[in-house]
Amino acid sequence: MKLGIDYYPEQWPENRWPVDARLMAGLGLSYVRIGEFAWSLLEPEEGRFDFGWLERAIAALQVEGLDVILGTPTAAPPPWLTSNYDILQRDANRQPLAPGSRRYACANNAAYLEHSRRIVTAMAQQFGRHEAIVGWQIDNEFGCHRTTWCFCPACHLAFQDWLKAQYGTLEALNQAWGTVFWSTIYSDWSQIPLPWPTLAQHNPGLLLDFRRFSSDSWVRYQKLQLQILRHHSPNRFITHNFMGSGEGGADQQDYYDLAADLDFVSWDNYPQGSLGIEHVALNHDMMRGFKRKNYWVMEQQPGVVNWRPYNRPVPPGLVRLWTYQGFGRGAEAVVYFRWRAGRFGQEQYHMGVLRQDGSPTRLYHEAGQVAQELKKLPPFRRKAAQVAILFDYADWWTIQLDPHQQDFSYLKLVRDIYRDLWAAGVAVDVIRRSEPLDQYQVVLVPAPILIDETEARRWQAFVEQGGRLLVTFRAFVKERSNIWTDQPLPAWLDELLGVRVEEYLGLPPDMRGAARDLDGKRSFPYWRWAEVLVPTTAQPLMLYNQFYWRDRAAVTQREVGRGRAVMVGCWFEHMLPGPVWEALELDRFAAPFQVPPDVEVIAIDFDGGEEGLLLLNHRSEPALVQLHRPAAELLLDLPLTQMITLQPKGVAIVQF
Amino acid sequence: MKLGIDYYPEQWPENRWPVDARLMAGLGLSYVRIGEFAWSLLEPEEGRFDFGWLERAIAALQVEGLDVILGTPTAAPPPWLTSNYDILQRDANRQPLAPGSRRYACANNAAYLEHSRRIVTAMAQQFGRHEAIVGWQIDNEFGCHRTTWCFCPACHLAFQDWLKAQYGTLEALNQAWGTVFWSTIYSDWSQIPLPWPTLAQHNPGLLLDFRRFSSDSWVRYQKLQLQILRHHSPNRFITHNFMGSGEGGADQQDYYDLAADLDFVSWDNYPQGSLGIEHVALNHDMMRGFKRKNYWVMEQQPGVVNWRPYNRPVPPGLVRLWTYQGFGRGAEAVVYFRWRAGRFGQEQYHMGVLRQDGSPTRLYHEAGQVAQELKKLPPFRRKAAQVAILFDYADWWTIQLDPHQQDFSYLKLVRDIYRDLWAAGVAVDVIRRSEPLDQYQVVLVPAPILIDETEARRWQAFVEQGGRLLVTFRAFVKERSNIWTDQPLPAWLDELLGVRVEEYLGLPPDMRGAARDLDGKRSFPYWRWAEVLVPTTAQPLMLYNQFYWRDRAAVTQREVGRGRAVMVGCWFEHMLPGPVWEALELDRFAAPFQVPPDVEVIAIDFDGGEEGLLLLNHRSEPALVQLHRPAAELLLDLPLTQMITLQPKGVAIVQF
Amino acid sequence: MKLGIDYYPEQWPENRWPVDARLMAGLGLSYVRIGEFAWSLLEPEEGRFDFGWLERAIAALQVEGLDVILGTPTAAPPPWLTSNYDILQRDANRQPLAPGSRRYACANNAAYLEHSRRIVTAMAQQFGRHEAIVGWQIDNEFGCHRTTWCFCPACHLAFQDWLKAQYGTLEALNQAWGTVFWSTIYSDWSQIPLPWPTLAQHNPGLLLDFRRFSSDSWVRYQKLQLQILRHHSPNRFITHNFMGSGEGGADQQDYYDLAADLDFVSWDNYPQGSLGIEHVALNHDMMRGFKRKNYWVMEQQPGVVNWRPYNRPVPPGLVRLWTYQGFGRGAEAVVYFRWRAGRFGQEQYHMGVLRQDGSPTRLYHEAGQVAQELKKLPPFRRKAAQVAILFDYADWWTIQLDPHQQDFSYLKLVRDIYRDLWAAGVAVDVIRRSEPLDQYQVVLVPAPILIDETEARRWQAFVEQGGRLLVTFRAFVKERSNIWTDQPLPAWLDELLGVRVEEYLGLPPDMRGAARDLDGKRSFPYWRWAEVLVPTTAQPLMLYNQFYWRDRAAVTQREVGRGRAVMVGCWFEHMLPGPVWEALELDRFAAPFQVPPDVEVIAIDFDGGEEGLLLLNHRSEPALVQLHRPAAELLLDLPLTQMITLQPKGVAIVQF
Ligand SMILES: [Zn+2]
Ligand SMILES: [Zn+2]
Ligand SMILES: [Zn+2]
Repeated sequence: MKLGIDYYPEQWPENRWPVDARLMAGLGLSYVRIGEFAWSLLEPEEGRFDFGWLERAIAALQVEGLDVILGTPTAAPPPWLTSNYDILQRDANRQPLAPGSRRYACANNAAYLEHSRRIVTAMAQQFGRHEAIVGWQIDNEFGCHRTTWCFCPACHLAFQDWLKAQYGTLEALNQAWGTVFWSTIYSDWSQIPLPWPTLAQHNPGLLLDFRRFSSDSWVRYQKLQLQILRHHSPNRFITHNFMGSGEGGADQQDYYDLAADLDFVSWDNYPQGSLGIEHVALNHDMMRGFKRKNYWVMEQQPGVVNWRPYNRPVPPGLVRLWTYQGFGRGAEAVVYFRWRAGRFGQEQYHMGVLRQDGSPTRLYHEAGQVAQELKKLPPFRRKAAQVAILFDYADWWTIQLDPHQQDFSYLKLVRDIYRDLWAAGVAVDVIRRSEPLDQYQVVLVPAPILIDETEARRWQAFVEQGGRLLVTFRAFVKERSNIWTDQPLPAWLDELLGVRVEEYLGLPPDMRGAARDLDGKRSFPYWRWAEVLVPTTAQPLMLYNQFYWRDRAAVTQREVGRGRAVMVGCWFEHMLPGPVWEALELDRFAAPFQVPPDVEVIAIDFDGGEEGLLLLNHRSEPALVQLHRPAAELLLDLPLTQMITLQPKGVAIVQF
Repeated sequence: MKLGIDYYPEQWPENRWPVDARLMAGLGLSYVRIGEFAWSLLEPEEGRFDFGWLERAIAALQVEGLDVILGTPTAAPPPWLTSNYDILQRDANRQPLAPGSRRYACANNAAYLEHSRRIVTAMAQQFGRHEAIVGWQIDNEFGCHRTTWCFCPACHLAFQDWLKAQYGTLEALNQAWGTVFWSTIYSDWSQIPLPWPTLAQHNPGLLLDFRRFSSDSWVRYQKLQLQILRHHSPNRFITHNFMGSGEGGADQQDYYDLAADLDFVSWDNYPQGSLGIEHVALNHDMMRGFKRKNYWVMEQQPGVVNWRPYNRPVPPGLVRLWTYQGFGRGAEAVVYFRWRAGRFGQEQYHMGVLRQDGSPTRLYHEAGQVAQELKKLPPFRRKAAQVAILFDYADWWTIQLDPHQQDFSYLKLVRDIYRDLWAAGVAVDVIRRSEPLDQYQVVLVPAPILIDETEARRWQAFVEQGGRLLVTFRAFVKERSNIWTDQPLPAWLDELLGVRVEEYLGLPPDMRGAARDLDGKRSFPYWRWAEVLVPTTAQPLMLYNQFYWRDRAAVTQREVGRGRAVMVGCWFEHMLPGPVWEALELDRFAAPFQVPPDVEVIAIDFDGGEEGLLLLNHRSEPALVQLHRPAAELLLDLPLTQMITLQPKGVAIVQF
Repeated sequence: MKLGIDYYPEQWPENRWPVDARLMAGLGLSYVRIGEFAWSLLEPEEGRFDFGWLERAIAALQVEGLDVILGTPTAAPPPWLTSNYDILQRDANRQPLAPGSRRYACANNAAYLEHSRRIVTAMAQQFGRHEAIVGWQIDNEFGCHRTTWCFCPACHLAFQDWLKAQYGTLEALNQAWGTVFWSTIYSDWSQIPLPWPTLAQHNPGLLLDFRRFSSDSWVRYQKLQLQILRHHSPNRFITHNFMGSGEGGADQQDYYDLAADLDFVSWDNYPQGSLGIEHVALNHDMMRGFKRKNYWVMEQQPGVVNWRPYNRPVPPGLVRLWTYQGFGRGAEAVVYFRWRAGRFGQEQYHMGVLRQDGSPTRLYHEAGQVAQELKKLPPFRRKAAQVAILFDYADWWTIQLDPHQQDFSYLKLVRDIYRDLWAAGVAVDVIRRSEPLDQYQVVLVPAPILIDETEARRWQAFVEQGGRLLVTFRAFVKERSNIWTDQPLPAWLDELLGVRVEEYLGLPPDMRGAARDLDGKRSFPYWRWAEVLVPTTAQPLMLYNQFYWRDRAAVTQREVGRGRAVMVGCWFEHMLPGPVWEALELDRFAAPFQVPPDVEVIAIDFDGGEEGLLLLNHRSEPALVQLHRPAAELLLDLPLTQMITLQPKGVAIVQF
């Protein structure tokens, strides 16, 4: 649990570097990330490298004992490169993205690949064995500004090649995509278009494969850099900074694939762009799931940012809360973005640890406080989760491509499931849909729209061996190539779940219903989506109240082996209503006391074996937490007590 | 009154075809439409035709006694065609529409015309005299996805040629368009642009003529196919499937022109995209008006569709109601779209008679019920209408191009007039503005913005001979080329109507007024538009209540010969308020009893001479209808009664 | 104070010209503007000029004693020009604007420049010394339809040249723009792009300089015409018609620069597009400020217009009110647009003095009434203002480019300050930020975001010599090239204002607060923006009530020399709340009686030395004004009274 800072020495006078380094070290920071936007300084003209200034900047940091993470600068090619070669992405209308900004280069462009190789090789040779360099960040936020998809001629050819590799023959592709529909049977690979704009829609198979191809393109691009760095820079970690799961294009990239080659994942945590407080926690848990190991926060929002329509103020204490939230959920380091607010360029209103004029902001003191606290705290780590949510990018894309009901967001569904668990203090892993489930007691699968028979069998085994499984609506509807199954729904899962889907219903906003438990005493509202379930071997658990499908099954459960399989047919406002919660026996994993609203509870273990809790008050008012048994609060060093008052945005670390 | 089905044998295994055919016949269906998206199977490479599979599919249907309508497949050219030739439409920004979808080919493109000719000729030669083929559908939904307008170089030249044919000389065109405004006097035909995007607007004459030209282009394209089919396929009907009058581009095509060459009109009825319940009835009446004869429903929504932001559930009974509504308004056949929900392509969520897995849906049983009922019902047809609404595409376009008040929708105005008639059970024809009016007692003309002196004289004669005529605001304002008349408004109609328009007023949403009858006892709200009328030889019928035009005439009437001419100056929330209704004596044509809200009444005659009613309950609750005299209900075979309870979405056929 | 009319003789038969001229003269009009859209008639083919018709039209006007303003017709090039040469602007996506409309030509396009030179020279030679011609209008509404910015290759080169002239060296440019950010250090001038679309943003320095360059391009284009006209047409005034400060692209052009070369400014006053009643008055005051002299209204809205989504009715009296408002605020002539409503082209619904059919509208009588009244009124002019608002286009652009809070509109802030002054009847000048301040007692500076040390010193001197200065938030934040200062905020102003800005806060809509005076008795709501002020040598004047910055200073004041400097830290709903109003002692300049809401008061002086008031009732109801002492009303020739009732939209001219 260490702190770090993102730093741009090239934006400040060289005589300021030692001052900054001394201040950083004095504040208790350990890591400094630098270099990731400096290509035009490092290679001021084609083939001529200038590493002197960076050597001196690293030296200035090294003198103060700071460890350096060096970024490869390929997210922002220098103007001479854009001017000498056409490396520009094309947008969906085939128009070039303009230079003058960042992330406009195409991952399948030969010139960009070649120059990326050269600058990364040169940097790796120069700095790869430098004492102060402890790791590398490759590029910066792949896909940011929604740039994962490119529609250029190089991508057109690469896509056709990718399809050849996937399908082997055109017959197989035509079959898989169902091109018989609307007469798009391809008789030559060169006929296959990119999904440029049409007035009607494109073939869904083409659309889904284009997303897979695009994601793969950047995985391949990352691998190019990885291989160079591995070769020239032994014993340094290599990571890339991910973007969470909300804005900015994070939905375009399969992060499981991108994570596979890295030593660990890091990410840029700007909570104010999220879907709600719990979404930040979800993002942390997703990051931990990409490699099923701990991760870094490589950029932590330090205060007001600059890129939103409204850039909301950040009250005192909130950055500290975010920092502890990261440590509590698996971050090994939290690196603040950025040291000093910038005078130049597109992010001038973005706050830093220092103001644009070099004077300290509130964050200076807040970060310093955290650094001091970390020194005194006994080491701890989060408790292992026994509950998992299964996640899949191809499911996300498939539903984005045809939501059928425009408010149907896969991410929001995941979030809704997560929210109920989060609010009760349940520790949750968010892992890839295809992962083994051995270590879990409860597994929840939101909208697994794409069919996978292997997974169906694995889930069957999981339940038979005592697991509790929840599968929602939109389960196992489509084959991998985005065509509908010819089996009854949920295909291949009907046996495990013991149900058949009679009808799927996308509900417009004026149709909201409720479903009740079997004795009719409790009703729970739902919206957006409903499926009429016909229990075959399952038992109904909840029934619909309204519309022409009233009294039909909304939720079913089936005892299988030593476990239980639950199917939820509708999008509840709270996705885990009482009967479902009980069927999954989730109380076993919840906090053993009443958690106040908007207070986050993270169960932790201390290295000494004691159990504990991290408590985060997201509210703007104080919160009172009544524990189930007395404990010590470590931050304020309070004596044993059972009642803890958290200040607004306050943090408590409780040891039992 | 027969039922049919749209079928895509090419999307299913050949050994399923006999099974499907047997099920169709068993269900009581008579017609099957096939083939309209199969070009890439029928001509798998340029010039090589493969008709074997289609022969076998037709044979499978023929065996079960089903009659086949064969579609020409030109709405979706095969990839090799798009790849070998540039047949792509250009959008308004001159960018090519991408292939990979449908309806992207240009009606003025030489290669597309040539290949259309070849495939249609080949099919007509192959199947033109086939026993099972009873008719042809040309192409599919011309203009769907708003593709009537193309901005390609071929269209540019064709537009200039079209203008030469219209105007003869540039002097005439410059005069007609008023190009003296903003200095666009053309000195060479080649200078005339397409309406590509400008920051200011284009000349209104150019814009209107571009719409006429575009509509004509598809009429000409249809004619190309018609001539081939007429030649090779004698004694088969030829139709095309229209799109109603709302979404999807139906406003871009003059359907009167398109209908002229066809044997009869058919259309695709997806009621949920309409402007309200009564709009579906209006669409039926419009279809009947395009050729003033009966028509087909070639695609009838069978349940949930897939292409809307929200795809609303379709409750039990509603498809049956829509079917009877069609029969009651002049449909000779109702063909459901589609037999089996598709596994492939862009419409996977679209419901069919069978599910994607081949199992029967609710519609299977509902369609079967209708088929059985039709067998037992005595033949009937709708009563002839004595009331007509006059409709015109050029009026629609002219107002779209310059609504002056952005909520001013010509279609909504037509709908508003229709709605009051519909709610009272008045039988209405909707016919072209230029049609003779001999058979009508009352004629209503919404916003006839373009001047036509011949029509003015015809309307004069109509009134003199005893007709009741209603003309609304925005009457006879512009000459055919979309320039303003130099006469006082309503030009050429002022004598017949006996009024002069002093001022036209587009009302923003915050200005809503009311108008009263002469004794001031009744007031009726209006919005959107008001014209200050100065009665010359007419009498005021209603007066405005507010604003600076208060106490001025809102509605006038004038006795002319044996008839009466009414001018309505403002857009009433209910377009036929009491005083207007009475002046037109519309009660003579209304149902002789109180019609409950959202219950549709269609007057019918039985072949045996008895009179009757078709009653359709559009509500989700039961409806009680109190008739004016006892009658028998034929569907449930109920005895004579004067009171009928309709179930939700229920239908009754009443015989007096 | 004279009236005029905009006239298009080319749109009407020649035999109508004398009729129109006689009517105009009879109505009391003095000026007629003609010719500004007649290029394709004046030069029907390249190089062949036809001035005969225009000679005859001018003669017809001259006969009736009317003075003619001749427009150069370059806003709408003829089709042959667009056809023979590529003169089209490119939009941001590099697509050509289509011909067929107006204002699509590029100010940096060689062919357009050459042909502009030719037509203007030919016209100037032909008419430059014509007796009837009293002045020229160059072109028409530069920038209308947002056409100031062009992205064509010619502009690309011109922009790079402009930058060379500004910065001298690339090193200077890289330094000034801070291209070290995101690696856009330019090593060749040709690498610098236009701000074509990117997915991330462009460099803020490039964006701001592109706006300066674009504005300069049209200033240069205007100069080209000016030089020709000055040479060939001595003793005639030269003006250009500006567009106010709201819609249509008026924000893209620095009107101070455009005004500099003109004899006087004129403008097109269409009040219904404004931000409120007071915005029309603000526009008048801005126009007067562009050259600090009187101006013309070259187009005065005459009634309903045609180009808005809703074209709101214009009640009787309102055009007269607008006319007197113009005379009261410095207009030397008010020219109505247009004589007769057009039958042709894009503005057919636009009302005129005559209808399309030639009959007189309400405006005919209203304009005639004004003309008669003007004959009888003693001459008067507005009182000189002692209060000034400082305005700057570069500040406007800088904030547009990065508002940080999307509702932060520079223009609205100016308007909000103006509104409080207007409502109290304070006479205000709106002048360029860089102007001398000698003649003022109070100066208000809204959001002067760009730093200027010279101005800081001038403002210091102004205060020391007894002036009252108000500076708002967002003061002196950025250097001229749109990079952040390295000084504490407000840079260079902190000494004069005696404050330091601790934090800037863009407030989302759900965060609204209030600030109170020091004794806490009065609170005033604010929104959108707040800065936490730390008084150094200043005293707090108001304190914040909420949020984590509660009790911190919201407004400060500092006594300096004989004057006082006030800094306002937050955007008050009423920008000049009580404590601020009092600190500036604004009551000294306000009307000495209670002004009813929406009644405008303009202080005037009669040539005979008497004082007076112009009263304008903007309400739709009568308004009662209670004066501080008896006076005579001159329009109705009422005797001495202290109480005046204004009709709806009524005007009174009061003489004490
Ligand atoms: Zn690419
Ligand atoms: Zn075309
Ligand atoms: Zn240009």
